[in-house]
Amino acid sequence: MNKVWASRKQRVLAHLKENGIDTALITAPSNIYYLTGFLSNPHERFLALLLDARSEEETLFVPALDAEAAAQAGVTARMVPLSDTDDAYARLQQEASGRIASIGVEKGYMTLDRAERIADAFPGVRTADLTSFIDSLKVRKTEEEIAKVRLAIDTVEKVVEHAASHAVVGMTELELTAELEYQMKRFGADKPSFESIVLTGRRSALPHGVPEAVPIAAGDYLLIDIGVKVQGYCSDITRTFLMGEGTEEQERIYETVLAANQAGISAAKLGHPIAAVDRAAREVIASAGYGEYFTHRVGHGFGMDIHEYPSLHGNNENPLEPGMLFTIEPGIYVPEIGGVRIEDDIYLREDGTAEVLTTYPKWLIRLGE
Amino acid sequence: MNKVWASRKQRVLAHLKENGIDTALITAPSNIYYLTGFLSNPHERFLALLLDARSEEETLFVPALDAEAAAQAGVTARMVPLSDTDDAYARLQQEASGRIASIGVEKGYMTLDRAERIADAFPGVRTADLTSFIDSLKVRKTEEEIAKVRLAIDTVEKVVEHAASHAVVGMTELELTAELEYQMKRFGADKPSFESIVLTGRRSALPHGVPEAVPIAAGDYLLIDIGVKVQGYCSDITRTFLMGEGTEEQERIYETVLAANQAGISAAKLGHPIAAVDRAAREVIASAGYGEYFTHRVGHGFGMDIHEYPSLHGNNENPLEPGMLFTIEPGIYVPEIGGVRIEDDIYLREDGTAEVLTTYPKWLIRLGE
Repeated sequence: MNKVWASRKQRVLAHLKENGIDTALITAPSNIYYLTGFLSNPHERFLALLLDARSEEETLFVPALDAEAAAQAGVTARMVPLSDTDDAYARLQQEASGRIASIGVEKGYMTLDRAERIADAFPGVRTADLTSFIDSLKVRKTEEEIAKVRLAIDTVEKVVEHAASHAVVGMTELELTAELEYQMKRFGADKPSFESIVLTGRRSALPHGVPEAVPIAAGDYLLIDIGVKVQGYCSDITRTFLMGEGTEEQERIYETVLAANQAGISAAKLGHPIAAVDRAAREVIASAGYGEYFTHRVGHGFGMDIHEYPSLHGNNENPLEPGMLFTIEPGIYVPEIGGVRIEDDIYLREDGTAEVLTTYPKWLIRLGE
Repeated sequence: MNKVWASRKQRVLAHLKENGIDTALITAPSNIYYLTGFLSNPHERFLALLLDARSEEETLFVPALDAEAAAQAGVTARMVPLSDTDDAYARLQQEASGRIASIGVEKGYMTLDRAERIADAFPGVRTADLTSFIDSLKVRKTEEEIAKVRLAIDTVEKVVEHAASHAVVGMTELELTAELEYQMKRFGADKPSFESIVLTGRRSALPHGVPEAVPIAAGDYLLIDIGVKVQGYCSDITRTFLMGEGTEEQERIYETVLAANQAGISAAKLGHPIAAVDRAAREVIASAGYGEYFTHRVGHGFGMDIHEYPSLHGNNENPLEPGMLFTIEPGIYVPEIGGVRIEDDIYLREDGTAEVLTTYPKWLIRLGE
């Protein structure tokens, strides 16, 4: 993999040179991983990769307690370990070679507090934003990356299958969540890629609801939105089940969401505007009279992070590009009835094919009969 | 609880008035929870509480898909739901009444990108930092808050006990982690309060190591650093076990860390410098000849977040204050042997007593014999 990190760093250096930026100071952990192979959550400690476009030197400022892990991950940058009593900004000033007139940072990640300290350490420095540029690199997923995503999807689909065969009336959302997260690890996941959403009954109408000690009842929806991380990459899938027969309206809502999901997938064509995916799905739901109950965008990019560029909403007129990996997840949330969401993971191949990576069945499945 | 949120908001308004700041724009989810009772992770969406010191009006800008949950949480602020296609900054500009000359934000949380958009929306606005002020409110934990922390500690200690009775040679770190996280939920936790650390053998010398498919071997250390969230509050505990007899040096390292843990606790006295806690523990480890292997600060504050103010390191000369809740967790990490860490949760009562909230035994426990 060393070649991969090196070529990515070269692209950042080239971007800096083209734009007359002296150095990059990368601080988002997933970007540091993307450029060095070292994945770590520093919490509030200072972790930063300094890339100097003039000397092509690379320096990793790393919490002392993680220096050993960084070395084991094969980081090739010169390392500057920082103890908990070190002043990171003073060290940064010492280690940065020569005068720095401009510095590229991730403005979408760096806090104002850090930005002000950097401005103090390098008086008069101009700050450039690298967020979109790094996003533009990361948005084009390679086959190697997609292989890891497939693994993460394969793992989470086993867990969805486990849910379908183990969920019973009377079990609580929390119990089922505990069971599913246990199975994630058993099937080889490193961890959930986001907070598992397991909701039932009217609570399934909360798109971001948190599982509670609420028992699953007969005739309820059971909405399961889960994902796992495997080898640094995420999966993200939602399936909604019906506990028993349910009502005609519940079935109609389900079929509408499914049609919207399929319309969204059909609209995901290379070169078309991203907004078209959202519009296609929304149109189906609006025509069925549920427009007001679809309260969120149709999907989001993902990869190493569960939310990455692009955002698939109705105002995003940027084109769909080769290598993009994203979810399509329309939903209808009626407070008095409950919610249905059906979410797939889509990969836009270099040849223009939109491949649906998720394979778990999408027809309405009734459980516990 | 409505009174609690109201009185906290009053303190923020008073601070704004005293410092001539027109409004506060609070965006850190834990701070929004602290002031409104609504806990939500908006990911990249815009969630903000606007408090106007002049009119005393409060407005919550909330992702449309979370508006229902905010209402259910009993938010009293006027709510402005934002759809995924809304321009949050344009809405902010519309909804903010009158000209805003100064705005207080959490500079330790707000990204540079957001700060720049706010500056565009309110030309000439002065930005003040509310981070330390809000920290100073949050650092003084009430008995009601500590009751929740006790619940979180009680829950996680049952899990540690479960670990001690179920860990066996041959089981992998990942298997044990899956089992412990399952038990967390079974014992009533909402979720882990941070990524569980379960490390064995030499890998226990990685203070931030991630569990892997590595089997526990006889004679190894087994380091378990876990915590849970219950009702929005965290616990955090580390215990290190020995699988079987081990060597004399392993025992000596353990006893040194235990003595350092106790020295740290004894030094945690109201009004004394925070640094004294770190120094007391570090001194014990240095005297035993392991100084270079204690690579991190002795502890950190926590509460709703797993890392809060204060940071207990050797340069923090601020005094220990009533209501502070923090960890004391010295460790020795010898790459060739492994690592030992013993971590307790301490509450500084208003009357000056340092109460050790964690109760799980700290003597050296040998497992699997």
